[in-house]
Amino acid sequence: MDKPVGFLGGTGIEGKGLALRFALAGVPVVIGSRSEERARSAAQEYNTFLGKPLLRGMVNRDMLASAGIVFLTVPADHAVAAVEACRDDFPSGLILVDVTVPTQIKEGRVEYLERKEGSNAELIAAHLPDRVRLVGAFKTVPAHVLAELDTPLECDVFVCSDSKEARGEVMELAKRIPSLRPLDAGPLGMARTLERMTILAIHLNRRYKKKGARYSVVGI
Amino acid sequence: MDKPVGFLGGTGIEGKGLALRFALAGVPVVIGSRSEERARSAAQEYNTFLGKPLLRGMVNRDMLASAGIVFLTVPADHAVAAVEACRDDFPSGLILVDVTVPTQIKEGRVEYLERKEGSNAELIAAHLPDRVRLVGAFKTVPAHVLAELDTPLECDVFVCSDSKEARGEVMELAKRIPSLRPLDAGPLGMARTLERMTILAIHLNRRYKKKGARYSVVGI
Repeated sequence: MDKPVGFLGGTGIEGKGLALRFALAGVPVVIGSRSEERARSAAQEYNTFLGKPLLRGMVNRDMLASAGIVFLTVPADHAVAAVEACRDDFPSGLILVDVTVPTQIKEGRVEYLERKEGSNAELIAAHLPDRVRLVGAFKTVPAHVLAELDTPLECDVFVCSDSKEARGEVMELAKRIPSLRPLDAGPLGMARTLERMTILAIHLNRRYKKKGARYSVVGI
Repeated sequence: MDKPVGFLGGTGIEGKGLALRFALAGVPVVIGSRSEERARSAAQEYNTFLGKPLLRGMVNRDMLASAGIVFLTVPADHAVAAVEACRDDFPSGLILVDVTVPTQIKEGRVEYLERKEGSNAELIAAHLPDRVRLVGAFKTVPAHVLAELDTPLECDVFVCSDSKEARGEVMELAKRIPSLRPLDAGPLGMARTLERMTILAIHLNRRYKKKGARYSVVGI
C-alpha cells in the first residue's frame, strides 16, 4: 500500500475499530474530520491507546488528497450530507467505501429503513460525482466488534461495487486484517441484501442476548 | 413428534433432501401431491434410495389432514397457486413452512424477484386463511445440499414467523437434522432478508465456482 487509507468521519465509533485494525496491520491510516482539531485529537487518542504513533489526523480535504481508499464512516443518515460537503474535494479515481446501514426504530425494534434507491449505498452513489468509485463493504461486520481489538473477527466481509477493480482493491485491503475473509459480493445493488443482513444480526443479538452476530459463509 | 411432517409438492427437488433428512432422523414423513400416484411413486423412490420404508405418499388433502407441520416445497412461482388449490383442506392451526425464494434471470444473472408484498413469504401469507400459521425457513439452505445426504450441513437455518409458537415448533423440528442450527429470525417480514441472502449465496457460488454456499452466524 503506497497511499494511506482514509476515514471520512473517522472520529466516531463507526470508523474507530477499522482504523485501529488497519493501523495495527501496518496500513498507513489518516483520520479525516470537518475540523482539523477533532481529527488530530482522535488520531492522538488512538495512538495513545495503541502506544504507537500509527495514525495521523487531518481535515477532510487534506485526507482526501492523500488517501487512495477512503472509508465513509458516518452515521447512515449523515452519509449524503457528508459526501455532498466533500464533493469538490474528491480526487479522480478515488475509491470510497460505504459501511453504512440505514435503520429506524419501530415499535421498539430496530428495522431496516428502506430507501427508494434500494439501499443506502445506492442512495450515496446517486450523490457522488462519476470520478468516485463507490464500494459497499463491512456493512455486516459490527463496529463495536471491530473496536474490540482482542476479539478475533472470524467472519466474512462482503464487498460489492459496480467497479470490479475497486471491489478487488478493497478486498485486497480487507485481507490485511487477520481472520477476516473478503468475499466478492458482486454489483453495488447487492448492498440491498447486505444492509438487511445487518438488521437480521441486530435482531439475533437481541433475541439471544449477544452483541457480536456476524456472518460466515459455509461451502465457499 | 406425534404427527408426521408433510410435504406439499414433495415430489420435486425442493422437498426431496428435507424429506429424506427428516426421515433418516426418525421423523415420520408424508409426501403429498395433487396426484396420489405421483405421491406414492415419489415415496417409493425415496424409500428404495434409503433402503427402508420410512416415507408415505398420499394426495395433498389426506397429507394435510394427517400432518402437523407441512413444508411448502414447490417452485416459488407456483406457491400461490399451490396454497389456493388446498385452501379448503387446510386444518385449523396447521403450520405451513415456506422455503421458497423468488428469482428472475436478468442479463444472464440470477436476481431477486421483488414482490410488492415485500417477500414471497408475505405474498403467500396474503393468500392463506387465518387458521394457517405461516413460517419462513430453510430459505438459505440450498436444496441440492440438503439432497446430498452425506454432506454435513454445518450451517444455520433462519426461522421467521408472526406466530412465536409456530416459529418455536419449526425450530424444534429443524434441530432433528444433524449439524443444522435453528436461529429465531423474528417476524415473517424478515423473509425479505432471508430470500435476498439466497441470491447472494447463488452469486457467491457462481463467482467462486462452488455449489453449496450457505450461512453460519458467528458470535451467537
